[in-house]
Amino acid sequence: MLTYSFENIGPEPLYLHLYKCIKNDILDGVLSSGTKLPSKRSFAKNLGISNITVENAYAQLQAEGFIYSIPKKGFYVTVLPDNMPGIKEEYINHETARIAAGSIMEEESQCKIDLVSNMTPPANFPFSIWAKLMREVISEKSSELMKKSPWGGIMELRRAISLHLKQFRNMDVAPEQIITGAGTEYLYTLIIQLLGYDKVYAVENPGYKKVAQIYKSNNVACEYIPVGSSGIVIEELERHNADVAHISPSHHYPTGIITPVSRRYEILAWASKKKGRYIIEDDYDSEFRLEGKPMPALQGIDIMERVIYINTFTKSLAPTIRISYMVLPWKLLHEFYNKLSFYSCTVSNFEQYTLARFINDGYFEKHINRMRNYYRNVRDKFMNEIKRSRLADICEISEEGSGLHFLLKIHTEIPDSEYVEICRQNKINVSCLSQYYIDDKNGTKAGITDSTGRNSYNNREHIIIMNYSGIKMEDIKETVSLLCKSLGLVYM
Amino acid sequence: MLTYSFENIGPEPLYLHLYKCIKNDILDGVLSSGTKLPSKRSFAKNLGISNITVENAYAQLQAEGFIYSIPKKGFYVTVLPDNMPGIKEEYINHETARIAAGSIMEEESQCKIDLVSNMTPPANFPFSIWAKLMREVISEKSSELMKKSPWGGIMELRRAISLHLKQFRNMDVAPEQIITGAGTEYLYTLIIQLLGYDKVYAVENPGYKKVAQIYKSNNVACEYIPVGSSGIVIEELERHNADVAHISPSHHYPTGIITPVSRRYEILAWASKKKGRYIIEDDYDSEFRLEGKPMPALQGIDIMERVIYINTFTKSLAPTIRISYMVLPWKLLHEFYNKLSFYSCTVSNFEQYTLARFINDGYFEKHINRMRNYYRNVRDKFMNEIKRSRLADICEISEEGSGLHFLLKIHTEIPDSEYVEICRQNKINVSCLSQYYIDDKNGTKAGITDSTGRNSYNNREHIIIMNYSGIKMEDIKETVSLLCKSLGLVYM
Repeated sequence: MLTYSFENIGPEPLYLHLYKCIKNDILDGVLSSGTKLPSKRSFAKNLGISNITVENAYAQLQAEGFIYSIPKKGFYVTVLPDNMPGIKEEYINHETARIAAGSIMEEESQCKIDLVSNMTPPANFPFSIWAKLMREVISEKSSELMKKSPWGGIMELRRAISLHLKQFRNMDVAPEQIITGAGTEYLYTLIIQLLGYDKVYAVENPGYKKVAQIYKSNNVACEYIPVGSSGIVIEELERHNADVAHISPSHHYPTGIITPVSRRYEILAWASKKKGRYIIEDDYDSEFRLEGKPMPALQGIDIMERVIYINTFTKSLAPTIRISYMVLPWKLLHEFYNKLSFYSCTVSNFEQYTLARFINDGYFEKHINRMRNYYRNVRDKFMNEIKRSRLADICEISEEGSGLHFLLKIHTEIPDSEYVEICRQNKINVSCLSQYYIDDKNGTKAGITDSTGRNSYNNREHIIIMNYSGIKMEDIKETVSLLCKSLGLVYM
Repeated sequence: MLTYSFENIGPEPLYLHLYKCIKNDILDGVLSSGTKLPSKRSFAKNLGISNITVENAYAQLQAEGFIYSIPKKGFYVTVLPDNMPGIKEEYINHETARIAAGSIMEEESQCKIDLVSNMTPPANFPFSIWAKLMREVISEKSSELMKKSPWGGIMELRRAISLHLKQFRNMDVAPEQIITGAGTEYLYTLIIQLLGYDKVYAVENPGYKKVAQIYKSNNVACEYIPVGSSGIVIEELERHNADVAHISPSHHYPTGIITPVSRRYEILAWASKKKGRYIIEDDYDSEFRLEGKPMPALQGIDIMERVIYINTFTKSLAPTIRISYMVLPWKLLHEFYNKLSFYSCTVSNFEQYTLARFINDGYFEKHINRMRNYYRNVRDKFMNEIKRSRLADICEISEEGSGLHFLLKIHTEIPDSEYVEICRQNKINVSCLSQYYIDDKNGTKAGITDSTGRNSYNNREHIIIMNYSGIKMEDIKETVSLLCKSLGLVYM
């Protein structure tokens, strides 16, 4: 009969120890497929442990498929395939994976202050209105709620978005052209399937790293195109043989650059020069222009049907709401219908109907106005606190007019990576402009190309991206104080 | 000055006619870039129409970017890129696209009775409980709701799913292994990104056409593997050099075949024979086994970490709820974390928290039990109505024990495609088993391979898939009557 030692097993439960011993013997081939295991009672007696311990160990082994039971006969080692490459190894990896997965979950927001993530302070979301609208939807739409949404989203929401785009962005878009999806990231993957895997997708450098990650993860060619002081550089689009340019002309992240009209026409001209060229216009935060009027969207001046417009409610409303949309030119819409309308809409009906009401009843506009006021106050308080602090002497603020971030250039010798790390130790999560650049393969550092065509990478260093979307009013003072502390400065 | 004729323009508004005339002249190059248009007043006078008509036409042209205005100077034709391949053509296509898109929206559910789509009768969804839980979530979780969900979904829901899988499917799954997403279709695309674009993905033939469509649309190799009377045929997996087998062993759609244990071990053996082989176990309707206990999941006996388990709440709860999940083996989870955790979770926090409560408070179990009873009654009533009808003499019923469909074999000479069309004319939407088969490239018809290895395609004809998930009790009689009518039979 099998014998295992129970000495020096530490605090581990007996049954777990027994389970592991048997499992290892199965994996090592000591206990071969089909071997009958000792009966619980005799095994327990033999090992000098209780019946229940053996029972628990067997139950665990059975649950994991290592053994099986035949009623009234007993337990047998599962018939495993002959060829088991590296199974032992994989099992050892379990532990690491488990720990990794566990700690990933816990890891989040160790930092008290977060100047990186996009968030909305809870107090700003109109919960009671949202709840009221949800109740209305439940009582009035119960049968619609049980029907599958059309592939592009429910028409009620698409009509609401169409009107909103007209009022807010002066865009003439038919509801049919609007396709909703659970997040812009998902929409990008649909666009790849629509435009093709053989295309070269161009992303902005610097820019959101995620956009490039998504293209690469979807197995398409992705090129980094420098962003100059007037937006993406056309010659570089040509040089990289780009087919599809993924850009944010209204407000570039993180530099804050707004692409001027002349460059906009140049971009449209670039797209129109060759069949199959397209522009993905990511208009992610046009709602949050704090000063002046937003520049019209590229989509509105595109008569060649080359612009796919994308926007999201996740950013303007709340991370809770996972609804984004794209506007397709008619020709692409036709193609989408033929190729991709088999996909189910990824947004729940429920939230689609609720959001449609939220827009139609004017709450969305009110919300945006309130948020704009709120964020204007946050920004102003930040400016004041910075001016009052020791930072004032060694920093310059720029791009404070739009979006929910501004740039803070600091005159310091501390390298960006080091500063970010010191901040983290001080429980403040920050990112620097330089982190958004992808450098050339041959080591040439990317930077902002100025109007003379000179690339100066110096102007990308020591610039903190002050994303204040999730910072509460009462935390601003502390935020500035922690930024000072991380630079070795006393706050005041 | 420009002159257009307004004669014989039919019921079209004047401004729309004028708009089209000018647009065509711009597209044809008659009006070249930069040309100044006549002032509204003189143009109106010249054409003998009102100022407001010209104004409306100009506004439309401006909205679409064909012309632009310079304050106090007038309207000018937009500077278009020199090279405009096929712009006219694209514009003509507009109309078709517009009509197509419009009619797609309207087209749905022309049929009174739908035996194809998956639906839930509205009365069966516990709206009041769902609404109550939503209110609780709003009042108790407001700050969590404003935070971004972790990439795999919120832990509360994943813990609830883990417990549910233990109780319901006796699966031992850690919450960390569960990754939620907005629909199984989305999860498939994540799996492709995880396992690789160089892999050969195998799908069942017959089977859900959508699954193959998704693989093809994601630009990976997809092979059709025959399903025999005991599930997918292993030799064919080998013959097609499959790396990843996408199967539904618990309940195959549409044949209803349940893969027996021996074949299950063979499938696991196939997977373990080569590195990089995986099984995607689609357990989409295991909750709705109407008779007996469901067979344990493949996932539960997979000790080689080769099974990715997938299930959805969209089917078991309501199309309203767009939440699906997959269970990754630890090793893959590790890879997922490294490669794909940059993706945001596609399900809204709000619905995640609500569903977590719905499961934890026992409502989900109650709902499933109630639905099972309800559907058992629907099925029984269907059986009775069929027995009482003229269909009884010429049909056989099979696979009525599980899922929300059964098969109705009809002895008739009418080809399947014709029968489906006649049904549609009678306002009843049906599908036949033969429609779920993909035939060989060389024209050999696929069929069910029996235990002797013989492929008999005869057994795939004249079998209606009676998907009764969306049929109301009170419509069953009429459904049977319409099926009779479509066969040229009198109901009773």
